[in-house]
Amino acid sequence: MDSERPHLQATLAALGQQGSRQAIATPAAVLDLDAFEANVALMAQRAKAAGLALRPHAKSHKCAWVARQQIAAGAVGVCCAKLAEAEALADAGIDGILVTSPIAGPAPAARAAALAARLSDFRIVLDHPDAAAELGAAATSKIQVLIDVDVGLGRTGVSGPRQALAVAEAIAAQPHLTLLGLQGYGGHWQHMAGAGARAAAVAEGMERLTAARAALSQAGFDIEVVTGGGTGTFATDAALGVLTEAQPGSYAFMDREYREALGDDPDGAFAQSLTVEATVISANHPQWVTVDAGLKAFSTDGPLPQPLTAKFEGCGYRFFGDEHGRLARPEAEVRRGERIAFAPGHIDPTLDRYDVLHLVRGEVLEAIVPIEARGASQ
Amino acid sequence: MDSERPHLQATLAALGQQGSRQAIATPAAVLDLDAFEANVALMAQRAKAAGLALRPHAKSHKCAWVARQQIAAGAVGVCCAKLAEAEALADAGIDGILVTSPIAGPAPAARAAALAARLSDFRIVLDHPDAAAELGAAATSKIQVLIDVDVGLGRTGVSGPRQALAVAEAIAAQPHLTLLGLQGYGGHWQHMAGAGARAAAVAEGMERLTAARAALSQAGFDIEVVTGGGTGTFATDAALGVLTEAQPGSYAFMDREYREALGDDPDGAFAQSLTVEATVISANHPQWVTVDAGLKAFSTDGPLPQPLTAKFEGCGYRFFGDEHGRLARPEAEVRRGERIAFAPGHIDPTLDRYDVLHLVRGEVLEAIVPIEARGASQ
Repeated sequence: MDSERPHLQATLAALGQQGSRQAIATPAAVLDLDAFEANVALMAQRAKAAGLALRPHAKSHKCAWVARQQIAAGAVGVCCAKLAEAEALADAGIDGILVTSPIAGPAPAARAAALAARLSDFRIVLDHPDAAAELGAAATSKIQVLIDVDVGLGRTGVSGPRQALAVAEAIAAQPHLTLLGLQGYGGHWQHMAGAGARAAAVAEGMERLTAARAALSQAGFDIEVVTGGGTGTFATDAALGVLTEAQPGSYAFMDREYREALGDDPDGAFAQSLTVEATVISANHPQWVTVDAGLKAFSTDGPLPQPLTAKFEGCGYRFFGDEHGRLARPEAEVRRGERIAFAPGHIDPTLDRYDVLHLVRGEVLEAIVPIEARGASQ
Repeated sequence: MDSERPHLQATLAALGQQGSRQAIATPAAVLDLDAFEANVALMAQRAKAAGLALRPHAKSHKCAWVARQQIAAGAVGVCCAKLAEAEALADAGIDGILVTSPIAGPAPAARAAALAARLSDFRIVLDHPDAAAELGAAATSKIQVLIDVDVGLGRTGVSGPRQALAVAEAIAAQPHLTLLGLQGYGGHWQHMAGAGARAAAVAEGMERLTAARAALSQAGFDIEVVTGGGTGTFATDAALGVLTEAQPGSYAFMDREYREALGDDPDGAFAQSLTVEATVISANHPQWVTVDAGLKAFSTDGPLPQPLTAKFEGCGYRFFGDEHGRLARPEAEVRRGERIAFAPGHIDPTLDRYDVLHLVRGEVLEAIVPIEARGASQ
């Protein structure tokens, strides 16, 4: 359906003719390849140096092309937040997928079983004995599972060693299920300002993972994999040595939220590779101009979008309805049709608004790739 | 691309087998047909009684099936916020389209000209003399245009009668352009609480439209159409008699923002027909349960999603990351797998997250229709 869209056809036609970034119909998700490649290489190098397996989280990008770049740079596979995300990426040829959210009910269990049957390496977390029973009943082949441990967020995961043991026993009762390890993800830690504050919070959470691991080992369960962590806690995750596998996502793109929280910390050493490009469509007002990117073009949960185009640096953006934004006028005159690149406030819900990613190098539009799992939150 | 998505295929397969609302993979946009049909009929009746042409705004739904229901009930066509939205709906067979945002530059002008050439009734607004020159240069056939007048929002539109005249003259200089009338839209009025407050604000804004119209008439320009208004100001728009055409969008679906602002006002007489359905995927925490609908499943700019399912009424929802929400526990026990319907905070950016609309009547899933213009903000 997406590939038939006229605005995309127009951009593709323009690409054939011009290959210029200026030909991209706005608002659009634009990826600066130089910055992106540097980010991907840097995280791969940090993971290698730390002895951590790198499994980037695809919920940030939902794009098979991005996943392939990450895997080519050394990642062992990707994480997916939801089954539909995993299905869409599997359809696009990605293997080595860990689903990081628990599921509930026989229909999702059947979909997980189908993924396990078609991929060479599929993994999924669970946090309740009933989930093991559901998945075991749906399984038609071996399914690798991990126990999700609540490390303090209270979102998903077993509450402690006792519940971890109950889930491990329920897994052991299912002939098709193999317990591979544990997951502990502290989403709330990722954007804490200050490397010290993040490190202290992570250390406390990691104790919960260590306790669950110890209880399971004592009961005879082998724990091969301990997976978790994100862009904001990578340095601490690496230093603590509890995790065997890291799940960062945003590092490949960055956003205003991360840049402001991480600042000059070691975890903030990534460049803003992803911008949303917009166009001035009205400039009649004396104090501001109106751009074609509003509530539907950006995340709206984090900081406001930030203009990066030099002429508009420091000009405040405000949402101006579903389809528009208002940008304070810079000193220089602004004309209808001028283009502005914005750093989004929060990368994941921003990219999930777009059907395609425009790959640019400088002013050259090199390719347009589909964001296959956009909207695939089911 | 969308039609090949596995989670959708799974739902469609389940539909073939079961036809049950319970088979819908969540999170999902679910439309209650009884409520929707009542909303569509009520607005059609109110417009007819007021002697206003009804041109519902498709930026709320982006869906050809919905547009067809509205047109079948008496609407003269639809509004689209952007060219890509119009292109997607035109591809799906919708005619009678007014693009309500100005555009800038030769590439969008060429796309507008192409729409004008293929539709029997295409209209677009402009708010600058240069826009008339761009559109005139791109035109290959007659294009109907309206002058967008700023009625106080300061987002788009000419600033007053003098600029309106300059644009009208620029239009008259283009042989392919026909000036049809004026547009004045006060987005900021729609959610004001209290019918009296909305009426006073609208009256002031409508004076600007009247002034622009008078100046143009005096200069010999015929003004056939005056279009604007929304769900929140319909009663006042009808009473003032300035508009000849109304552009409401949210009335067909409603959201928490409108319901709280409009309350028992005459403009609030519409039912919540659209809900986002979610599933409890983890219930280990003593104080809350975790559902599979988060920042990517809802708008995040307006009020928080509100659970409508009886068991969870009054339970507070909070965003819990990209893919999850946390819902305070009700008194009754909650199990993994339970389903909950939520009223979204703000309908337009919510529906723009979903590829399909699930049409239900009671517990029966009657059909799944594509949201063709989802993400088409270009």
